[in-house]
Amino acid sequence: MTDFSPIRWLGDAVEVLDQRELPWREVWIRCGTADEVAECIRSMALRGAPLIGIAAGYGVALAVRGNGGPARLREAAEAAARTLGATRPTAVNLAWALERMLRVVSAAVTSGRDPATIRRRAESEATAIHEEDVAMNRRLGRHGAELLPADGTVLTHCNAGALATGGWGTALGVVRSAVEAGKRVRVIADETRPYLQGARLTAWELVRDGIPVTVIADGMAGSILRTGEVHAVLVGADRIAANGDTANKIGTYPLAVLARRHQVPFYVAAPSSTLDRNLADGSRIPIEERPADELCVIRGTRMTPPGTAARHPAFDVTPAELITAVITEDGVFRPPFAFDRRGGGRG
Amino acid sequence: MTDFSPIRWLGDAVEVLDQRELPWREVWIRCGTADEVAECIRSMALRGAPLIGIAAGYGVALAVRGNGGPARLREAAEAAARTLGATRPTAVNLAWALERMLRVVSAAVTSGRDPATIRRRAESEATAIHEEDVAMNRRLGRHGAELLPADGTVLTHCNAGALATGGWGTALGVVRSAVEAGKRVRVIADETRPYLQGARLTAWELVRDGIPVTVIADGMAGSILRTGEVHAVLVGADRIAANGDTANKIGTYPLAVLARRHQVPFYVAAPSSTLDRNLADGSRIPIEERPADELCVIRGTRMTPPGTAARHPAFDVTPAELITAVITEDGVFRPPFAFDRRGGGRG
Repeated sequence: MTDFSPIRWLGDAVEVLDQRELPWREVWIRCGTADEVAECIRSMALRGAPLIGIAAGYGVALAVRGNGGPARLREAAEAAARTLGATRPTAVNLAWALERMLRVVSAAVTSGRDPATIRRRAESEATAIHEEDVAMNRRLGRHGAELLPADGTVLTHCNAGALATGGWGTALGVVRSAVEAGKRVRVIADETRPYLQGARLTAWELVRDGIPVTVIADGMAGSILRTGEVHAVLVGADRIAANGDTANKIGTYPLAVLARRHQVPFYVAAPSSTLDRNLADGSRIPIEERPADELCVIRGTRMTPPGTAARHPAFDVTPAELITAVITEDGVFRPPFAFDRRGGGRG
Repeated sequence: MTDFSPIRWLGDAVEVLDQRELPWREVWIRCGTADEVAECIRSMALRGAPLIGIAAGYGVALAVRGNGGPARLREAAEAAARTLGATRPTAVNLAWALERMLRVVSAAVTSGRDPATIRRRAESEATAIHEEDVAMNRRLGRHGAELLPADGTVLTHCNAGALATGGWGTALGVVRSAVEAGKRVRVIADETRPYLQGARLTAWELVRDGIPVTVIADGMAGSILRTGEVHAVLVGADRIAANGDTANKIGTYPLAVLARRHQVPFYVAAPSSTLDRNLADGSRIPIEERPADELCVIRGTRMTPPGTAARHPAFDVTPAELITAVITEDGVFRPPFAFDRRGGGRG
C-alpha cells in the first residue's frame, strides 16, 4: 500500500488533487492564496472532514505570507479563517484546524515574533496538522483492524479514505491496517449519490492498493446486509457530538438502521479532531444544503425534466444508539459515549 | 390529468414509448413481431411489471398474425410465449399475461376456429389485458386515495405510474385518484439508482399532470422520513407472494425498514395480476441480476475506475411484516395477508 496524500505543501503554495476529476484524470490545483483554498473546499475539488481541516490550515499559512508587520499578519490570518470557516458548515475539523492556526499565529504575534518567524510557525503548525492526521489515522487504523475478522467483508459509504484525509484514511484506514496486518478484507462500496464518492473515489484508491472493491447502488445495501455476507459497516464522520451522535455523508443513517436490523456491527472511524465536545447531541449539528443541480445534473446531463424540484441535504445524523463503536486514535469507544469528558480523544 | 398510455396497439404492430430516452425525447418504437417486443422488454425500453405483462400480451397477438393453419398459429404463440417469458424473471404479471393469451389461442384452436378468428381473439384478449389494467388501476387508485390525508406528502420509489402500466399507474394511480378526489398531494420521489426511474420517469409524468414532485437521492429518504413530513410511503410491486412478501425495485426494502422505524405507513399498490398465489412467501421470488454496467456507466460515462467490480440486483423483497397494507383493485388488505385464499384479488 502506498502512502498517498491528496494535498501537498510546496512552501509557497499548496497543491490539491481535484477529486471532481477522479477517476478520469489526475489533476492537481495549485493554490497560492487562502481564497483559492477556500474555493477548492467550497466547490468540492477537495472534500472529507479531515482533509478540509488540513487544507484550511495550509490556507492560513498562505495568508500570513503576505506583506506587513505582525499585527497585519494576524489580521490576515483572521480574515482567512473567516473565509475558510464559512465554506462548509458540517465538518467540525474545519473549525478545529482554524482555531489551532489562529492560536499559533496569535501567540507568535503576542510574544513579539518577527514576520518571518510568524510565517514559519504557521507553516509548521499547518504541516503538523497534516502529519498528525496521518499518524492518527495509522493509530485508529490499528485499533479498528482488531475489530475485523481474519477474512471478511466490510461495507462502506462515501469515501473515508486517503482522499478524505491527509493520507491512509479513517474507515479505509482501518481496512488498510487490517490488510497490512495480514487480514483478507473485501470492500463493498455504496456508490454514494449524488456525488458518487464511493464509485469514483473509494474504488479509485482501493483499486490502486489492490484491495478488492465492489460498487453497489446505495439502495442495494439493505438486501446485501440481509444476506449476512457483510461482517461490518465502517464509515467516517464529519462531526461527532459528545453523546456519540454522528453527522456523516447523506445515506449513512439508513445504513446504520439496516445494520442494526441485521445485527451487523456499525463502526464510525474518525480522528479526535472530528469530536465536537461542546455539542451535547446531534440535534444541533448544522446540515449543509447543497445545490439541487448537484443531484439532477450528472456529468453535464440533466436527468430530471424541467419543472422538477430537488433537494440536496449533504449529510445526515446517525443517533449514537445505532453505533456499535467509535474508533479514534485513542482506541475503540463503545456506548454510552461521553466525549465531553475527554474520553475518546486528545482534545 | 391526461389518460396516458406508454403502449399503443396499431392493429398490425404495437408501439411502445422508449423509456430509456425520457425525459429527453419522446421516441416510440414500432414492434411488428413478438421478438421485437421481447427485445423492448429485455433492454428496458419499457419496464414496470403491469406494462411488461401488457406488452407480452400484444407480443403473442403479433405472433399469431403469421401464415399457417390453426396448429401452426398455436405453435407460434407458444414459441413467442417462451421467448417473451424468458426476458425478465421477477415480474409475475408477465407469466400471468402469457398464460391468458395461450389459454385463449389454445381454446380457439381446440374448438376448430379458423386463423382469422384465432387472430381476432388473440388481439381482443391482448387489448382486454391492457384495458383491464387501466380499469384495475383506476379502482385501486380510488381505494388507495382514501388512505391519504386531505393535504399530504407521499414518498415513492422507482416509477409505479402510467409509465409502468397500461395507464393511470399503481402507486402514482393512488396519487392521481387522490388529486382527482380533491386532495392536495405532494410527491417526494427517490431518484432510484441505477436506472433513475424516479428522476426521469416519475418526475416526467407528475410534472405533466401538474402534481408537485421533488426528487431526492435514495440515501436521503431516511433523514426525510425522520422529520415527520412524509404521511405515507407508496410503492408498486413486481410480485407479491401469498403471505404478502413483496418484490419491488431494488431500494424498496430499506425504505420499508425506515418507514417502520419512523411509524410512517408503508403501502404497496398493485393490480391482482401481481399476486403470485402459488408462492408461499418471498424467499423463492427470482431476483434478476442485471449487467453491472447499467450501474457503472451513466449516459455513456463510466463512473468507476478500471478494475472495479459492481453488482446489480434489480429487485429486493420486502417482508410482509413491514407492509401496512396492500392495495389492489379489490380493496385495501392488511396483515396477515392470505392471497392464496383468493383474498385480495380476482384470480
